[in-house]
This record gives sequence, structure tokens and C-alpha cells, in this order.
Amino acid sequence: MRLCIIGSRGHQGYVVDGLREMPSVRVVGISAGSEDDDVGELTGTFGDLGRGAEVYSDYRLMLDELDPDVVSIAGPLEEHARMCIEALRRGVHVFCEKPVATTLKDLKRLRNAYDEADVRFAAMMGMRYDPAFHAAWRAVRDGAIGRVRLLNAQKSYKLGRRPGYYWRRGTYGGTIPWVGSHAIDWIRWFSGGRFKTVYATHTARFNNDHGELEASALCHFTLTDDVYASASIDYLRPATAATHGDDRIRVVGTKGIVEVRKGRVFLINNETNGVVELEAGCGRQIFRDFVEQIEGRGAALIDAEETFEVTESGGSWYDG
Amino acid sequence: MRLCIIGSRGHQGYVVDGLREMPSVRVVGISAGSEDDDVGELTGTFGDLGRGAEVYSDYRLMLDELDPDVVSIAGPLEEHARMCIEALRRGVHVFCEKPVATTLKDLKRLRNAYDEADVRFAAMMGMRYDPAFHAAWRAVRDGAIGRVRLLNAQKSYKLGRRPGYYWRRGTYGGTIPWVGSHAIDWIRWFSGGRFKTVYATHTARFNNDHGELEASALCHFTLTDDVYASASIDYLRPATAATHGDDRIRVVGTKGIVEVRKGRVFLINNETNGVVELEAGCGRQIFRDFVEQIEGRGAALIDAEETFEVTESGGSWYDG
Repeated sequence: MRLCIIGSRGHQGYVVDGLREMPSVRVVGISAGSEDDDVGELTGTFGDLGRGAEVYSDYRLMLDELDPDVVSIAGPLEEHARMCIEALRRGVHVFCEKPVATTLKDLKRLRNAYDEADVRFAAMMGMRYDPAFHAAWRAVRDGAIGRVRLLNAQKSYKLGRRPGYYWRRGTYGGTIPWVGSHAIDWIRWFSGGRFKTVYATHTARFNNDHGELEASALCHFTLTDDVYASASIDYLRPATAATHGDDRIRVVGTKGIVEVRKGRVFLINNETNGVVELEAGCGRQIFRDFVEQIEGRGAALIDAEETFEVTESGGSWYDG
Repeated sequence: MRLCIIGSRGHQGYVVDGLREMPSVRVVGISAGSEDDDVGELTGTFGDLGRGAEVYSDYRLMLDELDPDVVSIAGPLEEHARMCIEALRRGVHVFCEKPVATTLKDLKRLRNAYDEADVRFAAMMGMRYDPAFHAAWRAVRDGAIGRVRLLNAQKSYKLGRRPGYYWRRGTYGGTIPWVGSHAIDWIRWFSGGRFKTVYATHTARFNNDHGELEASALCHFTLTDDVYASASIDYLRPATAATHGDDRIRVVGTKGIVEVRKGRVFLINNETNGVVELEAGCGRQIFRDFVEQIEGRGAALIDAEETFEVTESGGSWYDG
């Protein structure tokens, strides 16, 4: 299987990790995808795995000349939809950093391109493969909490100093789609429900001079069967904190409650003797899953339908 | 100071605890306040403290004949506003179980009666006196987290089997005002802001045959200065849990984050070395505070204005 890489801005590390376990997948081309980005950083990320690859400044030319089976995209956020569409139109399977689109118009165009292509498409929703979140999800899937009724998700990040493309809505997309999309994805994934309505607020106040970047946000979702979910999102985690992010979820069901906090998983239900800790673990790898799905071996944890749905629910606020 | 007691349904225990420290306050009259309730239960609650009191079936008659200085009210929820108004019109200071009204119409009437009286009025917002929440609030007040930007409050209760008046909106008021009012009060109290908008959802689904009682609810508040707050409310806490309730708050500020969980208080800011635990403790008593406020000695943690505001923000959903 022949793979091209476009862009250095997101989690191309998922691809690197997956490639180490899949020698049959070969990187044939690399492009920074944007004049603003340095291809040296990208080739550095891939190291030995990218040694035989050709480097292109124009990713479209790369797709035309190398005709890859798969492409992994993590360019400027506002270019994702266009990059995906270019690949989809050429019949290439697409693994793309989220958000896959930063406007609803772009998302619609992308959706159309996907519908006309006969390929696999998925976003880098790597959080589904996090050991703690994956273990919690398995517990929910296996019935440990009965039917899901209420979810509280949290994303809290350190702000630090961010590059200029975070400062403008046009190149950043917004804090809800960028940081919050994971929380929104968990809500979709854990509940198994469909989003019916979204109410959300966000503000750029107290963002420590980061232009339009929103420092705090709150979302309120109603899913099918009157399941409710909150997503609390902020960049206000103190610099002294042990980790960059403080990711949490609390999933309340008819028979119990499961929680993830600090990478640990806690369960209480009518069979447990109070709160018990579950072992965190996943055993799956996001890019390997994507490739195996292309090869017809097993299903990945996130598919194109869910990618579109989560992007839409997390992106409805920032359209012109 | 002469005190009358009306009603046995709420936290009259706050008054009992306060009286033990204030021998100058004497219980002169006791009324169940409703034909549905047993005055024996109420006199039992007060024990020796109520031994000299006269027992009335008609609380209005009691107020007329005994002319008390203070009344403590915890009757049927839908009678609270009426009971308070009867006392306020007679110039009696009122300490009332929350919610002080179950419809906006009643709340308005109550507000008018208060404005025309020259007495003290407060709701039994006992959670402000909880050792952990009080310690967390002091940390916020003292600047440990800078300016408050985002709050996530949680109320999670065991359902068990509830008496019939919980089953009907008319006699229960709703889960948001009954269970959620504490969370809403914390949000008002910790943030120091004013409520600007409220968006909320609730459902009676999966309430284990409890009629109209809502088993899950979620509120999204916007306060002044774009401060956001969520309140997650449920009756889905498993019976095996160690405590009846799982009360939490997370308060995110510009300089740090304070949290209450399991009766413990955690703080992180730019001066702490990671997360540190604060000592829980209050040292104040809600009914003693109320009486001392009447006597002109110090301010209580909640006053009439905040009582009205919190009731309104937590009650806007269930008006006819």
C-alpha cells in the first residue's frame, strides 16, 4: 500500500506509530501542504519511514504523479476540506486531522466529494484509542451502566504561547471545533445517540492576547431519546499542571456511572461494591485500524458517517 | 427572640442545630403546615427544644396568636410562597426551605410582599455552609484562581422510592429547582456574577415509575462578563454508592482552578506545585447566621436578593 503525507500541523504521529507495525505500507510522497510550513519538520517526524519518499511543494502534483492508495492530511485547518476533496476526487483513501472542515459550506462540499468517491474516509479522532477512554467505552458498550442518559465531557488545556494561525478564526476554526471536537466525539461515541440540538457559548476574553482564540466555551447537546450532554472547554489550565490537558468524561446510565479522570477509569453500578477502578487499555492503533478497514479486515472505531456528524455538531457555530 | 416552626418537609434540622448554640431563641409555636403532614414528626425533630411550644393545625392562627419574631418554613413546596407571604405581611422574619416559590407568579407575589415588609428573608441554602464548598468559596474569594470564567456544577442523587408529592410537578416543583437549586446557587455564589441567560433541558424518562419527576437534567448559564456555567443534575446515582449525593463543583479562573469532590477541596494555580488539597471547614451555622443578621451582628452568606435571583434562575422552566 502506497501512502502520501500532506501537512505537518496535526497528529501525523498517529501515522508514524501505525507504520512501525505495518511494513507493507510505504510512504512514497511528502508535502508540507502549505508555503507557511516547513517540510523539514515533517520529514523529521517520519524519519527513516519517510526516507524513500519524494518531497513535493505542490501536493496536487504529488497526488497526480504518485497516485497513492492512501493519504494522511494534517495541513492548515482551513485547507483540510480542499485537500481531502482533491484526494477523494482522485480515488485516494483519506485519513485527515480534525476538523476536516472549518465551515459548513466546506463540509457540504467534502461530503459530496466523499459520496461520489468509493474510498474510506476518517478523521484522526485519536482520543477513541486512548487507553482510559477506550476502556470506559468498552464498559459502556458491554452494558455496565445500562442505557446512557447524561454525559459530562471536559477538555482543559494549557494555553502557553500559540502560533499566529491560532489567533484568527479563519485559520484556526475556533476552540470548540479544535479543542472541543474530542469531547463532542466522545459524546457521540459513548452515547451511541444522534445529535438533535446544540446550544453553545464561547468567548475570547482572558485569552492572554491571542486575538480571536476563545479561552472558554460551553456546549449543551440534546441527543436522541432525551439524552443530554455537556462539553466544558477551556485554555485556562495552569502552567504548573502535570499534564498539558485535563481530559474527562462522566457517563451516567440507568444502571451505573463510568468516569475517566487523569487517565484512570472508575465505575459504579448496582453490582460493584462502591466505586471500582477499571484497567485502562486499548490494544488498537488508529492508523492501523484505518488501513485494515481499507483492506477489508475489521472496522475502525470511527467511520466517515460519524466523522461528518461530529464535525457538523462541533462546527455549527463558526460559519459565516 | 420568639420562633415559630411551620412544616416538616425540609431542612428544619438547620434550625435545630442553630438553636442548640442560641439559648436566647425560643420555639413558641409549631405547625405541620399541611393536613397531609404529621406534626408528631416535626415535634420529634425539635425534641426538647420544642417542649414549651404550642402546637397549631392552622399556621395562620399561630402567627396571629403568638406574634413571633422569626418563622422557619419547610412545608409542601407549592405552599412555600403563600406561607412566606403570610409571615412577611405580619412583619415576621422568614427563613424558608428552598425553593421559596414553585411558579414565577408566586415568586413575584413573594417578592412584592418582601419589598413591602421590613424584615429579613432567606432560603435554606445550606450548601453554602458545607465545609468543603465553603473552603473552596473562600479560596476563590481570596483570589486563589483569579477571575472566575467557567463553572461546572454537579448534583447526583440516589432516587430510591419517593413519596407521592414528588410524582407531580404541582407538588414537587421539578428536579431542576429541587435538586438543581444548590448547583445554581453555587454558580451564583462562586462566580459573583449575575445570571443573564439560561438554557436547560430535563426529562422524566427512566425515572423508575415516579410520574412526572425528572430523572436527568442539564442547565447552561451565561453570566455577566461571558462567564459560563453548567449544572448537571440526575437521580441516577446507584444505590450501592457510599453517600446519597455526589456533589461537585469545578471553578475555572484566569489564574487557577478549584474543585470540590467527595467532600474534599482541590486547588491548582501558578503558585501551587501541581494540585494541592485545601482543608475543608466552615465554622458558621446557617440559622445562627440568619438570627445574627436580624440582630444586626454580621451578614449571612445568603440574603433576600440572592434568594430571589437564584430561585428565578432555577425556576423559569416550570411555570404554567
